[in-house]
Amino acid sequence: MSRFDQYFLMKPKDVIEYVIEKLTIFDEKADLECKEIGDGNLNYVFRVWDKNSDKSVIVKQAGDTARISDDFKLSTDRNRIEAEILQLEGKLAPGHVPEVYKYDPIMNCCSMQDLSDHVIMRQALIEHKKFPLFADHITTFMVNTLLLTTDIVMEHKEKKMAVKNYINPELCEITEDLVYTEPYNNYRDRNIVFEPNLEWIKKEFYEDKELHLEVAKLKFDFMNHAQALLHGDLHSGSIFVKPDSTYVIDPEFAFYGPIGYDVGNLIANLIFAWANADATILDEAERIDYMTWLENLIVEIVDLFKEKFLKAFQENVTEILAKVEGFDQWYLDTVLRDTAAVTGLELSRRIIGMAKVKDITGIEDEAARLRAERICLTAAKKFIKQRDTFKNGKDVIANVKKVEKQFSR
Amino acid sequence: MSRFDQYFLMKPKDVIEYVIEKLTIFDEKADLECKEIGDGNLNYVFRVWDKNSDKSVIVKQAGDTARISDDFKLSTDRNRIEAEILQLEGKLAPGHVPEVYKYDPIMNCCSMQDLSDHVIMRQALIEHKKFPLFADHITTFMVNTLLLTTDIVMEHKEKKMAVKNYINPELCEITEDLVYTEPYNNYRDRNIVFEPNLEWIKKEFYEDKELHLEVAKLKFDFMNHAQALLHGDLHSGSIFVKPDSTYVIDPEFAFYGPIGYDVGNLIANLIFAWANADATILDEAERIDYMTWLENLIVEIVDLFKEKFLKAFQENVTEILAKVEGFDQWYLDTVLRDTAAVTGLELSRRIIGMAKVKDITGIEDEAARLRAERICLTAAKKFIKQRDTFKNGKDVIANVKKVEKQFSR
Repeated sequence: MSRFDQYFLMKPKDVIEYVIEKLTIFDEKADLECKEIGDGNLNYVFRVWDKNSDKSVIVKQAGDTARISDDFKLSTDRNRIEAEILQLEGKLAPGHVPEVYKYDPIMNCCSMQDLSDHVIMRQALIEHKKFPLFADHITTFMVNTLLLTTDIVMEHKEKKMAVKNYINPELCEITEDLVYTEPYNNYRDRNIVFEPNLEWIKKEFYEDKELHLEVAKLKFDFMNHAQALLHGDLHSGSIFVKPDSTYVIDPEFAFYGPIGYDVGNLIANLIFAWANADATILDEAERIDYMTWLENLIVEIVDLFKEKFLKAFQENVTEILAKVEGFDQWYLDTVLRDTAAVTGLELSRRIIGMAKVKDITGIEDEAARLRAERICLTAAKKFIKQRDTFKNGKDVIANVKKVEKQFSR
Repeated sequence: MSRFDQYFLMKPKDVIEYVIEKLTIFDEKADLECKEIGDGNLNYVFRVWDKNSDKSVIVKQAGDTARISDDFKLSTDRNRIEAEILQLEGKLAPGHVPEVYKYDPIMNCCSMQDLSDHVIMRQALIEHKKFPLFADHITTFMVNTLLLTTDIVMEHKEKKMAVKNYINPELCEITEDLVYTEPYNNYRDRNIVFEPNLEWIKKEFYEDKELHLEVAKLKFDFMNHAQALLHGDLHSGSIFVKPDSTYVIDPEFAFYGPIGYDVGNLIANLIFAWANADATILDEAERIDYMTWLENLIVEIVDLFKEKFLKAFQENVTEILAKVEGFDQWYLDTVLRDTAAVTGLELSRRIIGMAKVKDITGIEDEAARLRAERICLTAAKKFIKQRDTFKNGKDVIANVKKVEKQFSR
């Protein structure tokens, strides 16, 4: 019998007891401390470290209600999905996801590699840091976790069982609402828009019926297109970086969906970093330098993704009809189209919807912040409406740069 | 304890004992007889009737190997899927699926309404019978079972659980192979082509790379597009008819896929009946009369489907973005495009592949049969390659009639 045979929400002192009983990382001489470091809405994240050695561990426990409100019930199944996905992604893209030491289905917690020597990428970009290996790392992560879980590569019956295993109704509902619905109609009255932009957003987003029709098509693609096993939340806040190392965390939104959802999510969040630099770096040379680095990073990510995708396609394809001449390029084109669309959706929802990003909200000068918002939103509409026209990294960054020039400082 | 607490493959005398023990249909004075009437490859179908009354029942049991070969292992889960789907379809389209009396997960059998007063539609069409209410009935069945199981109508989390519940890897694999692969490359050397057409089929199907690319796109749509809960095998051999009554049976291929798969399957098999009439009715007036009836039937099915689909869409839509102006018509257009494509795929695979239809194989005059095959296959290629151009029933039938005129008798 153990205290941990029945689920309860742990406090730091419980977690210390837990790791001593359940894990083999620490020896008996260890002097353990524990701190809750979670800042998300759904989970509790504990860091346990040994003051007598350099050993440490992360224990992530899922509550059965959201931290922000007990009324917001959530299945703890997301913790199983997260643990299983981390293990699967670890096989597909080794060195780019934290190692899982133990998943505990009773306590609904997952013990994993501590990445405290890394920083969250969103914060690092806001501090205008550069990561020269990031494009190479993240494109390897995306191509391997996405392409290798499709019907192009996987045996089809096994792929269907994976689709079944990762059906994720509650977390998908959050995305369907926040990304694919609310920014276009504010139907739940949860959007948060800074007053001077309100009328503009009403006209450009709430009243643009042509835009709504395109978003409706994209929403059904998100809900119905079981193409690859997505991370499902691949923004710069889900990525830990060091100059020579990149780790992707928090795959609890994982499910089978369109590949472009992950890629577009990433690109949009790099555009937020770019808009942040544009608005906050006052020294012109410094600003141009960092924005150019980010522009090149975005171009490199799109183009490296394409290159690695086609290469991995040819090396790993098993489906006989996917070997037909021209299919690989057609398939990649659909991914790039979806990527552009999701880039636009993510740019929109983070500015109009309730879940903001610090890259934008952290711009202290109000005029600069409003300008950054309009740049992102104007580019977003083109990404959505003209999603067929973005064929490479240059096309993507050209849209953003062109729009930036339209709004005077 | 009962003999039926453990699975075994029943013989007719076992089935009589089974229905007495498990069902309440027959009273103690019943004098029961039983006959195995199955003619499919996968299941055993028993009819039990009481010689002292008009009561009867069908008991359908799934084997764990195919009837044609013990080496062909199959999960008996298809019997659960069939029983659950019949009950669900019975709620969505009452009076068009047999009533389920009992599903037995131990014996892997389903006891259901006996439809022996009906005839299998394929056979009736080969005998040149007419069914004036069929278009109305089958379009109600299709619109209700398909549209009402989409994200347009269903609560999205419930819909995802339905997708999960009806993941059907083995039966989908059969379709992926027979419909979406083998007719285009004969890669398993299982195709059966009558010699005089062999060279023509090699050139028109095995060597047409443009066609292969389109089929590859369609195959991925079939595998990945979880749009609606399909019947999955909606040909004229899965439909029981009387002049005033239509029942759809055998939904064991059911899964979440593209709506056009069911509609196209049906249309293709009506085209086979039309090709059969063209080839076998020697009296010209009689032939024209029956072909015209079939042409009008196909036009009516497509156009009634469209009309009922849009009406049911407006009456049942719950998804907020699906209410956007123009979305219903765009969505229906994608269904019609998929319908045309699947019409072409089904026409092809039933002539080239190993699973033939009697409408064609039953044409005794060889020249007439070869002509019928080429008419179907030529129309099929246009249905696949130009699938975007078929917007109504007239478009569909015009393709077939135009091709028919190209091949002299």
